[in-house]
Amino acid sequence: MTRQQLVAQIYQKCSYLCVGLDTDITKIPQHLLSDPDPVFTFNKAIIDATRDLCVAYKINTAFYEAMGVKGWETLEKTVNYIPQEHFKIADAKRGDIGNTSSQYAKAFFETLPFDSITVAPYMGEDSIKPFLEYKNKWAIVLGLTSNSGAKDFELQQTGNQFLYEKVLQTASQWGTPDNLMFVVGATQASAFVNIRKLTPHHFYLVPGVGTQGGSLKDISEKALIKNECGLLVNVSRAIIYASSGEDFAKKTEITAKQYQEEMKEYLML
Amino acid sequence: MTRQQLVAQIYQKCSYLCVGLDTDITKIPQHLLSDPDPVFTFNKAIIDATRDLCVAYKINTAFYEAMGVKGWETLEKTVNYIPQEHFKIADAKRGDIGNTSSQYAKAFFETLPFDSITVAPYMGEDSIKPFLEYKNKWAIVLGLTSNSGAKDFELQQTGNQFLYEKVLQTASQWGTPDNLMFVVGATQASAFVNIRKLTPHHFYLVPGVGTQGGSLKDISEKALIKNECGLLVNVSRAIIYASSGEDFAKKTEITAKQYQEEMKEYLML
Repeated sequence: MTRQQLVAQIYQKCSYLCVGLDTDITKIPQHLLSDPDPVFTFNKAIIDATRDLCVAYKINTAFYEAMGVKGWETLEKTVNYIPQEHFKIADAKRGDIGNTSSQYAKAFFETLPFDSITVAPYMGEDSIKPFLEYKNKWAIVLGLTSNSGAKDFELQQTGNQFLYEKVLQTASQWGTPDNLMFVVGATQASAFVNIRKLTPHHFYLVPGVGTQGGSLKDISEKALIKNECGLLVNVSRAIIYASSGEDFAKKTEITAKQYQEEMKEYLML
Repeated sequence: MTRQQLVAQIYQKCSYLCVGLDTDITKIPQHLLSDPDPVFTFNKAIIDATRDLCVAYKINTAFYEAMGVKGWETLEKTVNYIPQEHFKIADAKRGDIGNTSSQYAKAFFETLPFDSITVAPYMGEDSIKPFLEYKNKWAIVLGLTSNSGAKDFELQQTGNQFLYEKVLQTASQWGTPDNLMFVVGATQASAFVNIRKLTPHHFYLVPGVGTQGGSLKDISEKALIKNECGLLVNVSRAIIYASSGEDFAKKTEITAKQYQEEMKEYLML
């Protein structure tokens, strides 16, 4: 998917919501468990309930790998079920030496039809480059994450800047705002002004709104780009587990709608 | 597997060789391609040819993920075929927020029978801790890697040390030498003396010998621990692709034997 297509979809739907399919079989409604593939049945219902309210889906590969071969089958069925129009993110945090990263790129961009993959920057340029060699595909590089461990390395000083700032500046040279985004956690709202200054044109994938406590208002005020948006805000648990009853899909739709309506306000400003 | 069991195996076999199963279907002998699962047939032959010469196998998950569901099946069959006595490494470079890393730990330590997994340190403590909560399982944290991109961040100064040194010092506090190792690339031989000083008791998983050009002699002289070894040296391509003919397994055995014999010398010093 091109940046232009993504931006067009955002303004058409008045939404920059990404729904995170971190589906944990122990957390889905019990009445689904008799199904032959409960996680896929759940994901289908979540996608049907949210497809008009969101522009992207993020599949967290860990939750599928935890189920082994069967989980990888469910992952494949799920990504193939997501409508053509949506931006498909493999939240996989991959990254390795060049010839290995090329295999990961093949896994997610050729064998599976993802538009993008989250990647870890620690190993440097040749670990990310293979993902940028695919036309209209995206690498989403970890910048400043939403978890407590961000302080251990990301927020350490390297020279006169934090490591995450060095990552933003360095990695932004490897690709362009048309094929590279950054992960910036919503719980780091105070850093967003500075981050937007460092990378004025890049999209950010923003996890941490909802269960993790980040504020949609805060980050939107600080990082939205006029007419370009530049944000994909991911909500996983707060949307997909909105209810554990038979009405779960309806509750999911209502919750997603609340996020979308709030986003519409910020897009209109 | 405990450290004691690993060290006992090393001195019994006079080997600290890890064979890397980075199996690429485009590089295996052509006569195997008519097999229903050529990669598994190849891996079985490689394991049979090397099992008495090595103490560990490292499965590079990227090469299996590139083949989709079928590849994940091959990965599962391969890890289950590795003899009980060998230390089984999932070279997966995983790492995410705590509740996601817990799912990765489940994937590799419960659903699959790996002893260890390589993990990326960028996201800090809570991204690694879930892997350390399993008894007799290991996290292998990226320290200083063998690729050219190591200079981008790992070799940047943080305060009065390199980032990779900070990672070694910080991460070594999260676990113990009994459940945490570091990845240190063989192409970084000049740094090994300093690295061994920083982490005197930890095992290192050392890729980069063979095709990538690292010297077994150099790193053994600089980092072996008397009576504890403290090294697992991985060789992938130079061993598994020793020949592309029908005699490939024999050539693999001969090459692995050369590494083992050289290692025996260093262990005896």
